Amino acid sequence: MALSKQPYKGARDFYPEDKRLQKYLFNTMRNVVERFGYEEYDAPILEPLELYKAKTGEEIVNEQTYTFTDRGDRQVAIRPEMTPTVSRMVAAKRQELTYPLRWYSIPNLWRYERPQRGRLREHWQLNVDIFGVAGPEAEHEVISMADSIMTTFGAKHDMYTIRLNSRKLSDYLLQEHLKFDHEQSRSLTKLIDRMHKISASDFSEQVDDLLTDTQRHAKADKALMAVLNATSIAELPPELHDHKSVEELKKLFELLKSSGVTNAVFDPSLMRGFDYYTDIVFEVFDTDPENNRSMFGGGRYDGLVGLFGVDSVPTVGFGLGDVTLQNFLGSHKLLPALRPETDLWVVLIGATYERAQGVLNEMRDAGLNVALDSTGRKTDKQLKAALKKGIKYALFIGEKELEKGEYTLKNLETVKETKQSIDEVIKLVSERA
Amino acid sequence: MALSKQPYKGARDFYPEDKRLQKYLFNTMRNVVERFGYEEYDAPILEPLELYKAKTGEEIVNEQTYTFTDRGDRQVAIRPEMTPTVSRMVAAKRQELTYPLRWYSIPNLWRYERPQRGRLREHWQLNVDIFGVAGPEAEHEVISMADSIMTTFGAKHDMYTIRLNSRKLSDYLLQEHLKFDHEQSRSLTKLIDRMHKISASDFSEQVDDLLTDTQRHAKADKALMAVLNATSIAELPPELHDHKSVEELKKLFELLKSSGVTNAVFDPSLMRGFDYYTDIVFEVFDTDPENNRSMFGGGRYDGLVGLFGVDSVPTVGFGLGDVTLQNFLGSHKLLPALRPETDLWVVLIGATYERAQGVLNEMRDAGLNVALDSTGRKTDKQLKAALKKGIKYALFIGEKELEKGEYTLKNLETVKETKQSIDEVIKLVSERA
Repeated sequence: MALSKQPYKGARDFYPEDKRLQKYLFNTMRNVVERFGYEEYDAPILEPLELYKAKTGEEIVNEQTYTFTDRGDRQVAIRPEMTPTVSRMVAAKRQELTYPLRWYSIPNLWRYERPQRGRLREHWQLNVDIFGVAGPEAEHEVISMADSIMTTFGAKHDMYTIRLNSRKLSDYLLQEHLKFDHEQSRSLTKLIDRMHKISASDFSEQVDDLLTDTQRHAKADKALMAVLNATSIAELPPELHDHKSVEELKKLFELLKSSGVTNAVFDPSLMRGFDYYTDIVFEVFDTDPENNRSMFGGGRYDGLVGLFGVDSVPTVGFGLGDVTLQNFLGSHKLLPALRPETDLWVVLIGATYERAQGVLNEMRDAGLNVALDSTGRKTDKQLKAALKKGIKYALFIGEKELEKGEYTLKNLETVKETKQSIDEVIKLVSERA
Repeated sequence: MALSKQPYKGARDFYPEDKRLQKYLFNTMRNVVERFGYEEYDAPILEPLELYKAKTGEEIVNEQTYTFTDRGDRQVAIRPEMTPTVSRMVAAKRQELTYPLRWYSIPNLWRYERPQRGRLREHWQLNVDIFGVAGPEAEHEVISMADSIMTTFGAKHDMYTIRLNSRKLSDYLLQEHLKFDHEQSRSLTKLIDRMHKISASDFSEQVDDLLTDTQRHAKADKALMAVLNATSIAELPPELHDHKSVEELKKLFELLKSSGVTNAVFDPSLMRGFDYYTDIVFEVFDTDPENNRSMFGGGRYDGLVGLFGVDSVPTVGFGLGDVTLQNFLGSHKLLPALRPETDLWVVLIGATYERAQGVLNEMRDAGLNVALDSTGRKTDKQLKAALKKGIKYALFIGEKELEKGEYTLKNLETVKETKQSIDEVIKLVSERA
């Protein structure tokens, strides 16, 4: 029986045209974050399962992570996210590293989920983290960088908003301001995280289930909704305005505004799935009404490095996945048309393969990407292959051409043919544009 | 208990300095193969286990491949090699693709082995394949490209040899010339593959075990050794000189010589571990007596695409691993010193973080990679961080500097300080070299 030609379910093959797009996405990301002084790191796709048990969240570890026991009886996971790994790496060299540390990576991550639009079983995710800055400068830099990535891809500020919240403020709100106990406030946090995915009536019903009779009597649900529906810091109850976390949020909004990030908004209902966030969290939302959803986000997680038995390090970071980004750019018509890497296709006339090598080397040494048709078939078939591949130029090399040192160069887009020396060919084709 | 800071056994963390080296290796490879018209593809790291059962070889599949059963009860493998994957992808679009097809990828591959020098449990491997060329032009191109990769990294021809053999010739030798039966010739192939890893006496003992009395009487072992010890085609017994596979080898040597690959030699004892090779095979050997071993290799495998229920496609390819390459370049002192990606470190004097943003943006927009010390600590500590990170330039930004538009730029290598406008800073730092 023939073998299956399909890739593993929920995962993608990247044919050259797909890979070219991915490289465009990755290289654009790399350029932006390196402008901000970030350096690339990487790590094995396999990690001890234990690494995720502490803080990744139960659902992900127990239901969505690829885990197995290796031939040496170790419990291994295919990484579902990069944050535990980068924390591990920083912890391992806690003393030697020089702070602030600015690191990024574009790892391949896996989750066992039901494949659907925007969610496959694997994706690639830009991870950016700054270690060693306790002040709001860290959040400011990381969020500015997220914004800069979006605008570098051609996005306008009306295409997305950056929603901000503070975990410290949420905790204070739920526990001190609204007087929920620890257990209630944990459950409410998880419930609020799903608030925009369920109906308003389902949400208030589930909130009601969590309340005590006294709280019901005191209309705690109304007080909660008043806070959650605030669309700016000014709309929060006045007694909250002096809380330290609110001051910090205000400072951050001010910094962002001063560097042109004008589409950041306060969203007190913003929680983030992971358990490790400790302070400011943010998410970037697509404003397209057809696709109005969270694209990516991050926040401050000061405690993670400390789990490895070393002093903790203040950290802010985010992750941006390629599938989500590509969907966004596609629906906003921001994906560019990309040309193949190959500049020139050589059509051989007669048995000139061996004699043409010198000319081929000359062009390659000069920096041209040159493929040739070495099938020995007729010239029209050779030319047709170049056209199908979308290559811009074809060059004809036969005995006569080699003798005279003059070759026919055909621009396959304009269909113009000219006679050129190799030096001229190199000059013309190098002007890629 | 604190979590472990170690990566998974036999796998590597890439800190920024390690990743920088890896990027240098990958980008150099990419440049060379794209000059030859190759286009990058990629595929999921997980594949159905079945994909490897057909041709990868029993030892690798049963003892060395990472396999597990997923939550949907599928038997999955973490890919131990890329060749079955690329064959699957070509088969899936057999009719739509335009030949010759030149593809490359740099996948991460995993094998459960005892970690040792040059062999970890994971590595990254350049895979290059040409599909659709039946003639020796395919081998010539692929081997020339392997040579070009080596020389582009700075290797000289006396540092490595390229050994060539033909599976067709080996089969003919064993079965027709030396009259071994099918079973004997299979066992001998495997034994010859290990010939240089065991002692000469062990080898001849094991050969002897495979012979029949008649063969022993006819001194078949002597005849075998005479063939295996040939160091050139001329040294083969004369009756072999007319065999088609010898003609093909000769043609290939001629082509290689004509394009400057002068370090290719014939090695009749060269077999390759994988079962799928059908004709010419080659391996690149380090000539360093301390490290005299095979670094990488490849060959022709015309039958693999056909396993997926479509017409087969003539294919030649090779794989070059990053660990082996790095060891080679290291032992031959060919690894370059690489600078950090960050060009400039900004030292803030006083509380100028917010006001400095405009200048930072200006430098970044002009293409400089600029990091800043946003810790708020003393200037000498900020400067020390830049030195420790190996960054070439530091720029001091305080209130006074912002007012005058004149900044102190310090070259941390020459320790020279000059006063410059931002335009001048951009000009000076852009001359990276």
